[in-house]
Amino acid sequence: MKQSKLFYKTQKAVSEKIEVTSHRLLIKGGFIDQLSSGVYSLLPLGFLVHKKIENIIREEMLRIGAQEVFLPALQPKYIWEKTGRWKSVGQILFKFKDRHGKEFTLGPTHEEVITQIVQKQIHSWRDLPVYLFQIQTKFRNELRFFGGLLRAREFVMKDLYSFHPDEKDFERYYKKVINAYLRVFRRCNLKVKIVEASAAGFTKGVSHEFQVVTPAGEDTIFYCSKCDFAQNKEIAKVKEGQICPKCKEGRIAKERGIEVGNIFPLGTKYSKAFDAYYIDKKGAKRPIVMGCYGIGLGRLMATIVEVNHDEGGIIWPQEVAPYQIHLLPIEIKERSVFKAAEKIYDNLQKASLEVLYDDRQKESIGEKLVESDLLGIPLRIVVSKKTLSKKQVEIKERSKKKIHLIKIKDVIKFLKEKHYV
Amino acid sequence: MKQSKLFYKTQKAVSEKIEVTSHRLLIKGGFIDQLSSGVYSLLPLGFLVHKKIENIIREEMLRIGAQEVFLPALQPKYIWEKTGRWKSVGQILFKFKDRHGKEFTLGPTHEEVITQIVQKQIHSWRDLPVYLFQIQTKFRNELRFFGGLLRAREFVMKDLYSFHPDEKDFERYYKKVINAYLRVFRRCNLKVKIVEASAAGFTKGVSHEFQVVTPAGEDTIFYCSKCDFAQNKEIAKVKEGQICPKCKEGRIAKERGIEVGNIFPLGTKYSKAFDAYYIDKKGAKRPIVMGCYGIGLGRLMATIVEVNHDEGGIIWPQEVAPYQIHLLPIEIKERSVFKAAEKIYDNLQKASLEVLYDDRQKESIGEKLVESDLLGIPLRIVVSKKTLSKKQVEIKERSKKKIHLIKIKDVIKFLKEKHYV
Repeated sequence: MKQSKLFYKTQKAVSEKIEVTSHRLLIKGGFIDQLSSGVYSLLPLGFLVHKKIENIIREEMLRIGAQEVFLPALQPKYIWEKTGRWKSVGQILFKFKDRHGKEFTLGPTHEEVITQIVQKQIHSWRDLPVYLFQIQTKFRNELRFFGGLLRAREFVMKDLYSFHPDEKDFERYYKKVINAYLRVFRRCNLKVKIVEASAAGFTKGVSHEFQVVTPAGEDTIFYCSKCDFAQNKEIAKVKEGQICPKCKEGRIAKERGIEVGNIFPLGTKYSKAFDAYYIDKKGAKRPIVMGCYGIGLGRLMATIVEVNHDEGGIIWPQEVAPYQIHLLPIEIKERSVFKAAEKIYDNLQKASLEVLYDDRQKESIGEKLVESDLLGIPLRIVVSKKTLSKKQVEIKERSKKKIHLIKIKDVIKFLKEKHYV
Repeated sequence: MKQSKLFYKTQKAVSEKIEVTSHRLLIKGGFIDQLSSGVYSLLPLGFLVHKKIENIIREEMLRIGAQEVFLPALQPKYIWEKTGRWKSVGQILFKFKDRHGKEFTLGPTHEEVITQIVQKQIHSWRDLPVYLFQIQTKFRNELRFFGGLLRAREFVMKDLYSFHPDEKDFERYYKKVINAYLRVFRRCNLKVKIVEASAAGFTKGVSHEFQVVTPAGEDTIFYCSKCDFAQNKEIAKVKEGQICPKCKEGRIAKERGIEVGNIFPLGTKYSKAFDAYYIDKKGAKRPIVMGCYGIGLGRLMATIVEVNHDEGGIIWPQEVAPYQIHLLPIEIKERSVFKAAEKIYDNLQKASLEVLYDDRQKESIGEKLVESDLLGIPLRIVVSKKTLSKKQVEIKERSKKKIHLIKIKDVIKFLKEKHYV
């Protein structure tokens, strides 16, 4: 992509009201634009990142046998009354009437819709288990929105629902989803803690959150410094500094965290409400056991920025970066530099690399380098008169200080070594 | 995909109220499920088709230099007041308040949102032209919904917006979009007529609709039997049977059509409303000239069914089919048949073909064949004891009557000849 054609504008300064780092950097770099409080547009650079995250999640969902669907946001009142949630989830629902006077809400989540579908299609133990997911927009009439994409009122979410003959089968799949989630977060270069949280009375057990420890988090978590014990403040019965109740060795630490995913045993609450029963092998009628599993894509994108940045800007992990390589010719008006840059751009594209090529004529070198750091593309290739005289370019990884002087003919080889090709 | 694992249920009979063929077949085949009037879920089979259509459209948009964005559905009242459309488009808007009392609507289209973004970023002739598109859910509080996905209240739409320094540049791109649209519809196996329609007073000219002629259409179009003259009834000044005013040779025919796409000159209506001006080469301030271009994905999907079906069911065009090949072993309980089918399934998958493998044990041969016709996968491979004795399988294209007897070892070769590999 030629940067002169890319639809983006970085901002020199952003409002001081924008306090959260990821929010500031995403606005400043031209990744997102605010339409209203808690409502954002994804601009081309932001869309590319969001799409990469979407594809990672989709791959990992398909890998654990989930099938993709797409469910409506417009949901009639009656399905929310079946579970009592029209009243119980309260003001989080946007509510309105259609022109015929029928009441609707916008789905903040889709348990009601999916359970009704499953009820129509599943009758026998032979039809189970089944795993259905979607990547779709949710709407939440939040009292408070926070940190740009960290807590928005409209956001894209991957929600997976699983349907099982019994608790044992559910638990088997629940573990599979944990592993799939760990793969998703690893690919996004995020370290997560699996934290116990409330199951909101659906089952006797707990639910689990995937928390990224960072001061920008809204949640407070307690965890052991030695073992995998970790609990959300809302259910924790431990205190900071005490000996871990699980391993009896480590000390309990207290930190803030961002919940980038959650997995939730639903038991039979929804299946009973929607009469989603099946006939088991012995001919007995039993309620389907359910689980649900969410990842908010926008929040995940913001969290990646929250823990992958420096004073100069964003440092995108390779798998989610809008482009892999930022090609930056200095003195582009010099014919030799221009010709070399064009040729390198061609070769990188032929090698199927995603390249942002700063072909702009007007901007100064300083401006270009500052902006390059802000945009956070993982690898930068600088073409200049000076290094060209030795048939070399400068290559620098965004996350590192070292500058490599590489022969032009060895660029692809270098990129292979760094796993870009 | 093993059919025993696929989440779908075909229906023997559907309500007689469902009169439109595409609606009936999509419900009957388990592609979609109705949540509310004019509101549908895409089930796994339907999602696969929808995704293929999405990818075709995305490819053709990227090919004409458009950049992808993702804009909010939640839109504040004030932007709709800037263009006067809060009142003028009337009841088509779902309107409601958030918990802070602020008024919102759900985007039935995104001219307001995109023009506001462009106004912030474009200041100079150097920034133009720019083309931005999204594939995103729209909401329309329709008085009347019709034909399942043909006219829904919630639907996914590709909307492209183009921004130009002047009318001439706009017209150049408008023609490019026409060609991109023709490629999209050709890939969906749809014959379209480009029909003149009202430009709703935005510009002196007309807008254009891409109409598929079919009795299921809501629109009425007049067109010449010889030349490319075609007009929507709403602006037509011709009558059925008269001599074409353009070529003076053909006769005017009258037919019903489904509008699968439209392209629209917006002139400067929105840019003026949002103060989206730029400085031209001579230093003069000029309003940006705009165009908008839409394709409804669900309607396109339904239209494909409307013109690609027979009495047995759907006949998916290859590029949008949920799977390319339906592998159907008869007498699957026979060890030789089962083994042969499994091996063919493996080989087809290794050749990167999308295969639905009917591995179900309980269903009768008759049931399986009827269902296979209903689902409409373009090519069927039948494995039976009888043909296996000659090391052969039966291959039939869904759109044709002829059955080919093909040696198992020549299956991939045959598929290559038919352009499946």
